[in-house]
Amino acid sequence: MTQVIIFMGSDSDFDYMEAAIEELDKCGITYEVFVASAHRTPERVKKLITESEENGAEVIIAGAGGAAHLAGVIASHTILPVIGVPLPTLGLGGADALLATVQMPRGIPVATVGMGNSANSALLAIQIIALHNEKAKKYMENYRLQLKEKVIKKHNNVIKRMNK
Amino acid sequence: MTQVIIFMGSDSDFDYMEAAIEELDKCGITYEVFVASAHRTPERVKKLITESEENGAEVIIAGAGGAAHLAGVIASHTILPVIGVPLPTLGLGGADALLATVQMPRGIPVATVGMGNSANSALLAIQIIALHNEKAKKYMENYRLQLKEKVIKKHNNVIKRMNK
Amino acid sequence: MTQVIIFMGSDSDFDYMEAAIEELDKCGITYEVFVASAHRTPERVKKLITESEENGAEVIIAGAGGAAHLAGVIASHTILPVIGVPLPTLGLGGADALLATVQMPRGIPVATVGMGNSANSALLAIQIIALHNEKAKKYMENYRLQLKEKVIKKHNNVIKRMNK
Amino acid sequence: MTQVIIFMGSDSDFDYMEAAIEELDKCGITYEVFVASAHRTPERVKKLITESEENGAEVIIAGAGGAAHLAGVIASHTILPVIGVPLPTLGLGGADALLATVQMPRGIPVATVGMGNSANSALLAIQIIALHNEKAKKYMENYRLQLKEKVIKKHNNVIKRMNK
Amino acid sequence: MTQVIIFMGSDSDFDYMEAAIEELDKCGITYEVFVASAHRTPERVKKLITESEENGAEVIIAGAGGAAHLAGVIASHTILPVIGVPLPTLGLGGADALLATVQMPRGIPVATVGMGNSANSALLAIQIIALHNEKAKKYMENYRLQLKEKVIKKHNNVIKRMNK
Amino acid sequence: MTQVIIFMGSDSDFDYMEAAIEELDKCGITYEVFVASAHRTPERVKKLITESEENGAEVIIAGAGGAAHLAGVIASHTILPVIGVPLPTLGLGGADALLATVQMPRGIPVATVGMGNSANSALLAIQIIALHNEKAKKYMENYRLQLKEKVIKKHNNVIKRMNK
Amino acid sequence: MTQVIIFMGSDSDFDYMEAAIEELDKCGITYEVFVASAHRTPERVKKLITESEENGAEVIIAGAGGAAHLAGVIASHTILPVIGVPLPTLGLGGADALLATVQMPRGIPVATVGMGNSANSALLAIQIIALHNEKAKKYMENYRLQLKEKVIKKHNNVIKRMNK
Amino acid sequence: MTQVIIFMGSDSDFDYMEAAIEELDKCGITYEVFVASAHRTPERVKKLITESEENGAEVIIAGAGGAAHLAGVIASHTILPVIGVPLPTLGLGGADALLATVQMPRGIPVATVGMGNSANSALLAIQIIALHNEKAKKYMENYRLQLKEKVIKKHNNVIKRMNK
Repeated sequence: MTQVIIFMGSDSDFDYMEAAIEELDKCGITYEVFVASAHRTPERVKKLITESEENGAEVIIAGAGGAAHLAGVIASHTILPVIGVPLPTLGLGGADALLATVQMPRGIPVATVGMGNSANSALLAIQIIALHNEKAKKYMENYRLQLKEKVIKKHNNVIKRMNK
Repeated sequence: MTQVIIFMGSDSDFDYMEAAIEELDKCGITYEVFVASAHRTPERVKKLITESEENGAEVIIAGAGGAAHLAGVIASHTILPVIGVPLPTLGLGGADALLATVQMPRGIPVATVGMGNSANSALLAIQIIALHNEKAKKYMENYRLQLKEKVIKKHNNVIKRMNK
Repeated sequence: MTQVIIFMGSDSDFDYMEAAIEELDKCGITYEVFVASAHRTPERVKKLITESEENGAEVIIAGAGGAAHLAGVIASHTILPVIGVPLPTLGLGGADALLATVQMPRGIPVATVGMGNSANSALLAIQIIALHNEKAKKYMENYRLQLKEKVIKKHNNVIKRMNK
Repeated sequence: MTQVIIFMGSDSDFDYMEAAIEELDKCGITYEVFVASAHRTPERVKKLITESEENGAEVIIAGAGGAAHLAGVIASHTILPVIGVPLPTLGLGGADALLATVQMPRGIPVATVGMGNSANSALLAIQIIALHNEKAKKYMENYRLQLKEKVIKKHNNVIKRMNK
Repeated sequence: MTQVIIFMGSDSDFDYMEAAIEELDKCGITYEVFVASAHRTPERVKKLITESEENGAEVIIAGAGGAAHLAGVIASHTILPVIGVPLPTLGLGGADALLATVQMPRGIPVATVGMGNSANSALLAIQIIALHNEKAKKYMENYRLQLKEKVIKKHNNVIKRMNK
Repeated sequence: MTQVIIFMGSDSDFDYMEAAIEELDKCGITYEVFVASAHRTPERVKKLITESEENGAEVIIAGAGGAAHLAGVIASHTILPVIGVPLPTLGLGGADALLATVQMPRGIPVATVGMGNSANSALLAIQIIALHNEKAKKYMENYRLQLKEKVIKKHNNVIKRMNK
Repeated sequence: MTQVIIFMGSDSDFDYMEAAIEELDKCGITYEVFVASAHRTPERVKKLITESEENGAEVIIAGAGGAAHLAGVIASHTILPVIGVPLPTLGLGGADALLATVQMPRGIPVATVGMGNSANSALLAIQIIALHNEKAKKYMENYRLQLKEKVIKKHNNVIKRMNK
Repeated sequence: MTQVIIFMGSDSDFDYMEAAIEELDKCGITYEVFVASAHRTPERVKKLITESEENGAEVIIAGAGGAAHLAGVIASHTILPVIGVPLPTLGLGGADALLATVQMPRGIPVATVGMGNSANSALLAIQIIALHNEKAKKYMENYRLQLKEKVIKKHNNVIKRMNK
């Protein structure tokens, strides 16, 4: 069984999407990664979604830039929750990807996270899975505690820099 | 048990958020609605979240306009999935609410849906609940079929208008 | 044989798309109109394109608002020229539709025209058809002459208003 | 006979427009390239268009940045389909070129493609020519198949990177 | 002799451009008004400029909306100072007209004034003419004094409203 | 002694600025209101500031739209805290006023509040005065409690609407 | 007693916030610096504010990027004046932080300064403190004089560069 | 006699404003350059304008970034034509400077040129002066011819690059 499927529109998106993989790895969530294009390989996208559903997938993550249709097209083929990660591009700074991902029509939502913030797409997936998965829930509760500790560490870094 | 909690920043947001209530009603999802402000009543927000968690809430929806902090502040108090609905405002057209909702820092995601599109926040909540709730799953599968039929109806409307 | 296919995402888009129909009618171009949604009825979109191609379609026009994926999804299923008409929406003023239509990835272009300017999508279609269709070519040459005359008419309107 | 004419506003635009030339070369489409400015050499633009039309040109591509009037001015002199390529500039990131290219008035359409995406302008030109040119049609059908293969290659790149 | 030429792209622009006429009238500046389109009647634009120059025109004002090329195209045909008035449009709120007017390439400046602010285009024209026209100079000096008095009037209006 | 000075650029700004007056009235803060323009009456602005300082003014509020220089110009003439209220305008929705108010150079800050939100400018003024004025401090502490009660009232409004 | 509290959302914000520290140091204002996150450590934020108030804090400065809720969340816990510094981020260039900081709802103002301009946040704090602190007032009066001298220095730099 | 006065807000603006100086030098126009800040040295700005007017100045150029008030403040002190050059800044890409320069209120126009395009500010100044100065007129007529030749040169550069 694969719990999360990660789609990205191109191999050049991997630098942005790697953080999602790291977060899922830390939590012990199983996942698969596919490069697939809403426009260049529409059938492949559809086929991979069907197979993923049969394989027990619970959440789908999709990262894309430009006229980022990937998350929306995936959402049109499944009722699994689909999380969209808009990726920045030269020139328009990612406003295109953000709007093309979030402004979905009534009936087909995409759960959009921040620009290039694939880590948050993975954490949102874990939070969704945690509703029926005790291990994921424990992980997230602990994750939040660590988050607080990291802030203290960062605070100490600043105090050190000020004392130099 | 209440499955979904709907927060809104003001009673004037109700016109936008009513569609979420309608969608949850149709699916038979239990919900509660609270007006609460991230800035004016921060303690109330926190208390309502704790009570909701104890009450079995699975998903939280938050609609707000302007510097829309509500969804983000809620997300900081819980590991339940939080869905943000940016609401349009005069002048800047809702760009403020969209960016203030979606651009959350690493660690605390908000699942953002389209501008004023509270119907999609409810549908996303149902899709999340459907992962462990057979009735919700059936509902969504049927919903998507109806969506297709509605498109055919709209097509027929256009053909009628053209034939006039 | 149907020369041009006009897609729109909803019957509410008809008010914007009607001008395209008028322009095609004046030129005597044959066309069909379909309401179809990239997200709600992806299979229907694909099937209509295949049938249109078999039916001899030469150009496809697609008008949509919000995260306007319709033109891009159509373009992914055909090598016919696809013309996208971004439609304005409340709040973000249509910037979402413009960017989601025009910023297509390398390999799958959409010929985008101005915000809500479906008349221009029809005229562009006629200009494309005119490359191998003498009647359409004559029509466009004449259309441009009339355009010049209309400007003179508008000039006279202003002079009249000034003389009041 | 020259099938496609490529205009650019300055020699500094060549880095962006080179991809169009490459795509036309691969397809065996004949083309000519001109640097010409809508504002600095308006007569030259007009003269080149007239000569191109006499020479059998079928599609005109125009790339420009800033207040990018080049495509629109060309479109005002011909009924050949004109494809506009907005080019990014410092500061405003190309929003100026996008809007100045796409927002043409009723009567004079410019088929606008994505920011700096001259490859897509060439592919759109080939798709238009393919309507009456069997060789171009075959090329595009094959191009789309290759596009699908490239996505598989990119997928394999990502899998390799993940296995490192 | 006609001192100022006012161009507008359409008769529907007259509502915005009327304020320019009023300001010129008050100062006693001679002017002519033309509806002419950079795209629909490029030759007419050029011809009118040549005639205006022969007729002694000193400043040209051009108001246009959308991909507002009118001022720029005029500027390419003359070395008279050209003042551009971007006009607001539905959807994008006039950002298209502003950027298409102001972002001219090196060599061909357009003196751009605020959105729909044709009064300021006339005042700028008068300020330019005032450099060699004592009557216009006197008018402007007096105009500024009146401007100060108007502010006092507006102040009194507010005080009255507060005392109600 | 006058504690707060309210400037506005025009009498038409009064509709937006009235809320500031109401808030100051409720708290019992003394104030004066002036219409004055940074551009039309620069000397008047300077003179009023000097008089206000001599009169004991503690905080200055300035509301303006368009290229909103008023707050910045006031700030250049005084070291009293200056609060800027950007006012929305047609077309660009107030983005011009927001940026022209907030993006002040190093050395001359303007404390900018939200679009058209003059109530907040008054409340910020009271919070500043409360640092050395016990009555104002008490007022603000009570104001915040009332704010919480208003949220409960709004909550009850929504519950009532839902029960209809 | 600590007069000013500086919050920042992360240690990576220190590069932007350092200028505030420098300005406070020069004036001899006492301050404390905390890294604290509105979302990751909401309780810590609240606790630090309470302690700061007991410690005599007069002004709070908060710098944050992205969906910058920090200043707003702080403002919801105190009636001390809160100054927000929006920090730029990749992609959207800081528009997210600016809007999320400035567009606060009625009742809870944040005094927003320019993008990344933490120096101005410190100067605004000093101007506020100067209302009841003669030393700070003297400092600001002198600071403004020095500002004028710096402009003369910069003028001389330009003249030197021109004479090379 | 000095024909043109160039103001800039800071010595760091010189890199952008140098092109204006070059263009004036080539034409033999006399000019003076001042660093002066609308906010830091308002009196100096006013004094320099008065002196410039007495000295025979005909046109004033002002370049500034951020909340670029410099051109507007200058325009409020003189009836000479004032040309504004918005300069780009980090983060918001110069949109702040563009809007703060161009959106002047009725009565006080600023002739705004493109982002950082100080060359065009000088050329516009020369075009204005050419109305009563035969030497400047000859220069501009010749300049335009050279502009055409430069386009041919750029064309040849592209042809050379293509033949490599």
